[in-house]
Amino acid sequence: MKISFQALFDQLLNVLLKNGFERQDAELCARLFAEASLDGVYSHGLNRFPAFIRDVQSGVVDPHAIPEKVATLGSALERWDGNLGPGNLNAHRCMARAIELAKAHGMGGVALRNTNHWMRAGTYGWQAADAGCLAVCFTNTIGNMPPWGGVECRIGNNPLVVAVPRKEGHIVLDMAMSLFSYGKLNIAKNQQQPLPFEGGYDQEGKLTRDAARILRTKRPLPIGYWKGSGMALMLDLFSAILSDGKSTADIGMISDANCIEQGISQFFLCFHVSQPGTPDLADRIASELVEWVHATQPADKATEVTYPGERTLRTRRENLEHGVPVDEAIWNTVLAL
Amino acid sequence: MKISFQALFDQLLNVLLKNGFERQDAELCARLFAEASLDGVYSHGLNRFPAFIRDVQSGVVDPHAIPEKVATLGSALERWDGNLGPGNLNAHRCMARAIELAKAHGMGGVALRNTNHWMRAGTYGWQAADAGCLAVCFTNTIGNMPPWGGVECRIGNNPLVVAVPRKEGHIVLDMAMSLFSYGKLNIAKNQQQPLPFEGGYDQEGKLTRDAARILRTKRPLPIGYWKGSGMALMLDLFSAILSDGKSTADIGMISDANCIEQGISQFFLCFHVSQPGTPDLADRIASELVEWVHATQPADKATEVTYPGERTLRTRRENLEHGVPVDEAIWNTVLAL
Repeated sequence: MKISFQALFDQLLNVLLKNGFERQDAELCARLFAEASLDGVYSHGLNRFPAFIRDVQSGVVDPHAIPEKVATLGSALERWDGNLGPGNLNAHRCMARAIELAKAHGMGGVALRNTNHWMRAGTYGWQAADAGCLAVCFTNTIGNMPPWGGVECRIGNNPLVVAVPRKEGHIVLDMAMSLFSYGKLNIAKNQQQPLPFEGGYDQEGKLTRDAARILRTKRPLPIGYWKGSGMALMLDLFSAILSDGKSTADIGMISDANCIEQGISQFFLCFHVSQPGTPDLADRIASELVEWVHATQPADKATEVTYPGERTLRTRRENLEHGVPVDEAIWNTVLAL
Repeated sequence: MKISFQALFDQLLNVLLKNGFERQDAELCARLFAEASLDGVYSHGLNRFPAFIRDVQSGVVDPHAIPEKVATLGSALERWDGNLGPGNLNAHRCMARAIELAKAHGMGGVALRNTNHWMRAGTYGWQAADAGCLAVCFTNTIGNMPPWGGVECRIGNNPLVVAVPRKEGHIVLDMAMSLFSYGKLNIAKNQQQPLPFEGGYDQEGKLTRDAARILRTKRPLPIGYWKGSGMALMLDLFSAILSDGKSTADIGMISDANCIEQGISQFFLCFHVSQPGTPDLADRIASELVEWVHATQPADKATEVTYPGERTLRTRRENLEHGVPVDEAIWNTVLAL
């Protein structure tokens, strides 16, 4: 079924207010969840909301916590503590601060510790691009993927976002270091569909396209095998060191039954290089490069060569016009919260 | 055959001096080439040297050019022009400047345009880590890989380096956005060995482990399929926009016979967050995380779980002690230059 963006937002807002959020926080939090679904990232929009409310109710997430600056590491680099507040509100505030720093100093960075899951990673890339900034941000996570050559989940899939502003549609890459997220693996398992590519290992240690087997071994494949494994480690190192926060070694492994993903570390970096009164450099180069990539001869007639974020924008427009697709059972759960 | 690091360095220095390099430049350039081979990156050390000298002799690379600052984009962010000088000298100077800026401001960035191939990417990560900095740097390249869904080489494999200093051995990731480099594909083809994983497409549009077929189609696979393709585009955008330099759209495609990789764009970013007199934060977190990852149960007894840069350091020590392995034909070519 489909519901309007407004109806989705109103219901999420309602539940957040009932769960002790201040009105201003509730409005931003509801908008960020609703926009994830609007943009087609259903796994981190409405579908994730019941678990978020459970985390609020169990005390993993403190709805009243406000992030605070704990150190200035230079004129344009700051360290903040998230005080275990709502991950999306903390991330949104830190990206807003990185934007502010970039507009004052050309480049601005905010490292955030003791925060919680930021829900849809891409949110903060779109936020920065809307403000005219190039941006990079990333988070560490609970250990949910084995490092290359191993079988225990000692590294996170550590999502990475890279964004470039462009008038005709921002270019926003939002990717985890695992080839397929646990969300995607669960969907493929439930639909009994093979993955489009080998996505992890089975119990015999062989690569497989069977999501159910990968979910059993908890051995999803990093992108580019050893390369994504290395990159996940570097993102963890950067977020933990710059924030003086927890690394995945401190957070623990998803395979430990009583391990909770809490108090994670993130980094937000922005660049603002447009000069007032001159043609916009980022827009010119981004538009040229989009045109160049669009002109690529496709592998076959059914294939379209797109830039990161292009389909998101299309989905957003479609869902705004025709309503946001929702899972009826989850929607009913949220109506009852 | 093996030769000593000193003999390798001396011969490269000798050739550079004969080709018009000033002594100081020649010494740095020879060291960077020799260290690439010393560290086991043979493809971008001695093996690449004859092509580099050809580029100097044909005028693609100007041995006398000095990079110069063209804009200050903020207190800690600068734009430099490489003036088509030697790529490794330009990159080394810009990373040195980024280190200097980071030590003064916590974070420092240098965007470089109109430069040339920087040879071994990892060089600049080790340089920054040796100076106690966390670092990220990347370059764009000639179009040498199709964007996801396409068949024409309109994106570069755009190598990315991420480095974290650590007393017992820096953690340095050096990876291109293609799963296998053209160098690796050529080695596999010459040895008639299948690739360890599917590395690109054959002429029927099927994924293959046959390097010879991939070299024919010029369709190497990006890491993580659509993900590495998107990441390559973002790295190109960042390096071209921040430097106001050429993107791959301006450089051209490897498949165009008369296309030359020249005047490319790069970015160097450093962080320095150690406080004098306090325990080193980067070293503590990096050492903890290395210990945690090393403790991973391996997939089988023959497998070792390592961090990026661990094997490099081992190779460096081995080659320093026992000599640097060189291809006899290439060594003889260089002796005759």
